[in-house]
Amino acid sequence: MSHTYRYPRPALTVDIVVFGLDAEDLQVLLIERDGKPFRGQWALPGGFVDVGESPDDAARRELEEETGLSEIFLEQLYTFGNPGRDPREHVVTIAHYALVNLNEHDVKASSDARNAAWFSINDLPKLAFDHSEILKVALDRLRAKVRYQPIGFELLPKKFTLRQLQHLYELILDRELDKRNFRKKVLATEIVKETNQFEKDVAHRAARLYRFDQRKYDRMTKQGFNFEV
Amino acid sequence: MSHTYRYPRPALTVDIVVFGLDAEDLQVLLIERDGKPFRGQWALPGGFVDVGESPDDAARRELEEETGLSEIFLEQLYTFGNPGRDPREHVVTIAHYALVNLNEHDVKASSDARNAAWFSINDLPKLAFDHSEILKVALDRLRAKVRYQPIGFELLPKKFTLRQLQHLYELILDRELDKRNFRKKVLATEIVKETNQFEKDVAHRAARLYRFDQRKYDRMTKQGFNFEV
Repeated sequence: MSHTYRYPRPALTVDIVVFGLDAEDLQVLLIERDGKPFRGQWALPGGFVDVGESPDDAARRELEEETGLSEIFLEQLYTFGNPGRDPREHVVTIAHYALVNLNEHDVKASSDARNAAWFSINDLPKLAFDHSEILKVALDRLRAKVRYQPIGFELLPKKFTLRQLQHLYELILDRELDKRNFRKKVLATEIVKETNQFEKDVAHRAARLYRFDQRKYDRMTKQGFNFEV
Repeated sequence: MSHTYRYPRPALTVDIVVFGLDAEDLQVLLIERDGKPFRGQWALPGGFVDVGESPDDAARRELEEETGLSEIFLEQLYTFGNPGRDPREHVVTIAHYALVNLNEHDVKASSDARNAAWFSINDLPKLAFDHSEILKVALDRLRAKVRYQPIGFELLPKKFTLRQLQHLYELILDRELDKRNFRKKVLATEIVKETNQFEKDVAHRAARLYRFDQRKYDRMTKQGFNFEV
């Protein structure tokens, strides 16, 4: 495609911070680079925005190409464009963040990337480019957002215990929460509905499973709510 | 400058939503376009990002070139990149928003732009490109942010009455606030300090002037605060 504007322009990419949750930890998905620069280093999944492609579409395409992940919660984070951030030339990247439930998605490395793997946010390798900074901004956004939007729930399975939900918030906020107070506040939001099912195959006493009220959930994600736990 | 990546790339611009406050209204700064497309229509100030220039620098440069405004509060808003948003070619724009105090800055139209003017957000002309959508997102961001960051204060003069401060919040939040309750909450944040000065040349009884505690202000802008008025 020809350029209407003749003068040079920065290159444009997307990068995606994908958060996942396992029993232990909040995790982030990284790709081992097999191209220059930073060959062999870990980096966020991402790639170039095509002409005629929206940044959101580019992020979803790159994520699926590099990790096989699709149809997950994905939102624009921030655009990073300092001239020095890529040694090759001036590359501006539109960073996104995504939330996946590890029980329901599995991640494959793709042709584009040598290797894809989950890392605990408490035990990260050195990252290529300015990806450590992007990851920090994403984590800050996630921590801020769970206070006024129920997005954190995207990380849980369809049915979950209140203990799992509290654990999620404790991991994201990186502090312990009072059990009784947390449950009172969560149930007060009315996003969470009790089911008649209970945990299976657990050593401790089986706890009740809960699910979301999708309509309330969607409405509150739009309106925002004040959830100071 | 040559491109390391040979394939075509979207064009990259910045646009800036500049909010200002006068006695009556929350205002936004618009530019009358003198180039194609949308010649003669009103639009947000903005322009192309140079290679080797950060988006933030580009936004400040374009704002000064087109309006003469400099050294004001400016923050990245969101990146808009739908292929159809510019009739010429695929142009991705990194939108920013800025807050200025109209008493302390005056705006001149520059060589780049035929005409620059302030419009009440309640009485806007038809805007070029997708600038109406960008403006709406900026207004939503401003309304959300004044609840957890004291950024709204950027719109006031150095010394102000609590009536002015309440008026600012009422304009941004677009609803009336209870006077006693508002003052109690504002003073509780300790961002606002009373001075020994009073309004001059006012018909009504002269009210006390207040100023910000800059150190508390900066810290709270970083940390955020919960200011549900």
